[in-house]
Amino acid sequence: MLAAAALSRLILLRLGLVVLLLFGALPRPTLAQTDPLPSWNEGKAKTSIMDFVRRVTTQGSADFVPVEERIATFDNDGTLWAEQPMYFQILFALDRLKAMARATPALAATEPYKSALSENNTVLAALGEKGFLQIVALTHTGLTVADFEKIVQDWLKTARHPRFDRPYTDLVYQPMQELLAYLRANGFKTFIVSGGGVEFMRPWAPKAYGIPPEQIVGSSGKTEFKLDGDKPEILKLPEIEFVDDGAGKPVGINRFIGRRPVFAAGNSDGDLEMLQWTTLNTGPRLGLIVHHTDAEREWAYDRNSHVGRLAKALDQAPERGWLVVDMKTDWKVVFPFQK
Amino acid sequence: MLAAAALSRLILLRLGLVVLLLFGALPRPTLAQTDPLPSWNEGKAKTSIMDFVRRVTTQGSADFVPVEERIATFDNDGTLWAEQPMYFQILFALDRLKAMARATPALAATEPYKSALSENNTVLAALGEKGFLQIVALTHTGLTVADFEKIVQDWLKTARHPRFDRPYTDLVYQPMQELLAYLRANGFKTFIVSGGGVEFMRPWAPKAYGIPPEQIVGSSGKTEFKLDGDKPEILKLPEIEFVDDGAGKPVGINRFIGRRPVFAAGNSDGDLEMLQWTTLNTGPRLGLIVHHTDAEREWAYDRNSHVGRLAKALDQAPERGWLVVDMKTDWKVVFPFQK
Repeated sequence: MLAAAALSRLILLRLGLVVLLLFGALPRPTLAQTDPLPSWNEGKAKTSIMDFVRRVTTQGSADFVPVEERIATFDNDGTLWAEQPMYFQILFALDRLKAMARATPALAATEPYKSALSENNTVLAALGEKGFLQIVALTHTGLTVADFEKIVQDWLKTARHPRFDRPYTDLVYQPMQELLAYLRANGFKTFIVSGGGVEFMRPWAPKAYGIPPEQIVGSSGKTEFKLDGDKPEILKLPEIEFVDDGAGKPVGINRFIGRRPVFAAGNSDGDLEMLQWTTLNTGPRLGLIVHHTDAEREWAYDRNSHVGRLAKALDQAPERGWLVVDMKTDWKVVFPFQK
Repeated sequence: MLAAAALSRLILLRLGLVVLLLFGALPRPTLAQTDPLPSWNEGKAKTSIMDFVRRVTTQGSADFVPVEERIATFDNDGTLWAEQPMYFQILFALDRLKAMARATPALAATEPYKSALSENNTVLAALGEKGFLQIVALTHTGLTVADFEKIVQDWLKTARHPRFDRPYTDLVYQPMQELLAYLRANGFKTFIVSGGGVEFMRPWAPKAYGIPPEQIVGSSGKTEFKLDGDKPEILKLPEIEFVDDGAGKPVGINRFIGRRPVFAAGNSDGDLEMLQWTTLNTGPRLGLIVHHTDAEREWAYDRNSHVGRLAKALDQAPERGWLVVDMKTDWKVVFPFQK
């Protein structure tokens, strides 16, 4: 019985192989190809991206890049999701400060927390970097990484963006989601390289972008390992460890990824050095800048913006050959909910 | 013609599906399974590893772990390759010091380089941590990461291990190679988490272990991004940034990987906290210690060794349930060239 079954199995296996061979040898009818970037309007931006991907993935082409070297790095704020009216992590810090002040009312009487709680944008702006660092220290440290992760996840469940009245994770850019998926389908490993805090991004970015935690590089504070009886913990300390912005981005790429990317996307001068490190090298390279030009569907800002200032990178784009994506004309939709 | 081809293709496709369905439904004859760990002797160690992998990969099992959480971390020195008579990175530093002293003879007259060049082990040992850090600073910094990578690669091409007279990369452990491949075949993502320098490992470890640069975590010095005209560079500075050893290992795992491993392997007290962080948690976990017990094929050392000292982790192993692998009895071969 077993022998008969084995024989049938062998025959079917052979038949299967014959079918596969025939199948592979038949002329392929022309099928309508699915557009991998449906939210990108036809034009230079879309053509340049698709041409680059075709060149680096074509075996035998002078520009062919082996799969293991297909490293693509993306800034997050303003490149993969929105960053107005303020970086979302700052809005998170202010919400968390409010919650902490409800639990500890004395906080509301102490500067800079008092000013930060005023909900007055002029007062807020006057806090400056020093004030904000104090707020980040208060709201982001003195707890375990596991507890912080839960706080971020809980915040995302209830917080709403002030203009769109939607969860912040709804404000990812649809065309960039398609670009991430398109690159991955072509053998690229996609990374986030953001000035934002790595512990703030890891709780939600994997689901939002399909990028696992170990492929997210960001700014970080120092941490400490503690064994409390039989319970190991990692504590977040109030000391800055690494600022993954500007010249820190190539440093972070070298430290965390250990390879030079062939593709990088950003939207501000904080991405200038990442674009330089990626593109000023031999072989095929693509640097991409998301230019915020659409005040109606999103925001329009560059040289004089308080977030995502874009001046030097925009000036260098023509000579460096960086692709400047015009949000208004190049993108059919901005956010997934506008589809 | 095209229609006929398409029709044949459709029929063959259907036929293929039927074959596949029948094939899947037939009783499977018992076939001799290929042993995924042929260099491991039958016994508790091999059984425990295979049992763990079966449990975490069995859908519906209480111990099932989704693929994205199958994170496995491995120490390098003494766990994946040998570390006697000294960490190989120190032997590299001494060779590089010799080369630098040939180019700059004044070095040979200056301490601690003079002592280091003496090739007298007692004098070398007397240098202590401070002396070695000075030698590492001299031999590992003040150049670009690209130049350093080339120096490491060139060294590996010519340097020979003093006992085995073979390239250092021949001294990887065959059973651990099989374990890495076995875990990856079962959906694990494998990482190196080593006290060694990350820039020293990345030039050779990807080829030696099948682990890409971005999955190698190690100690590091500070670096700096520089744009020299149109040529971007990353320079290695003589300042320690991160020591990925002891309590630094869970910190490094949290920073670089962002997930808690379910499997960790080490061989010394420098791996104690990584083993604690990995295993003192709910759900299925496996902590593994390579115990160097084979003076004939490799070396025998633990509590009193000047490298890879293993005392605390060995003492905690029974209560923590860590698997202690006895190199002499559990491994059929140690190095690939002994096969």
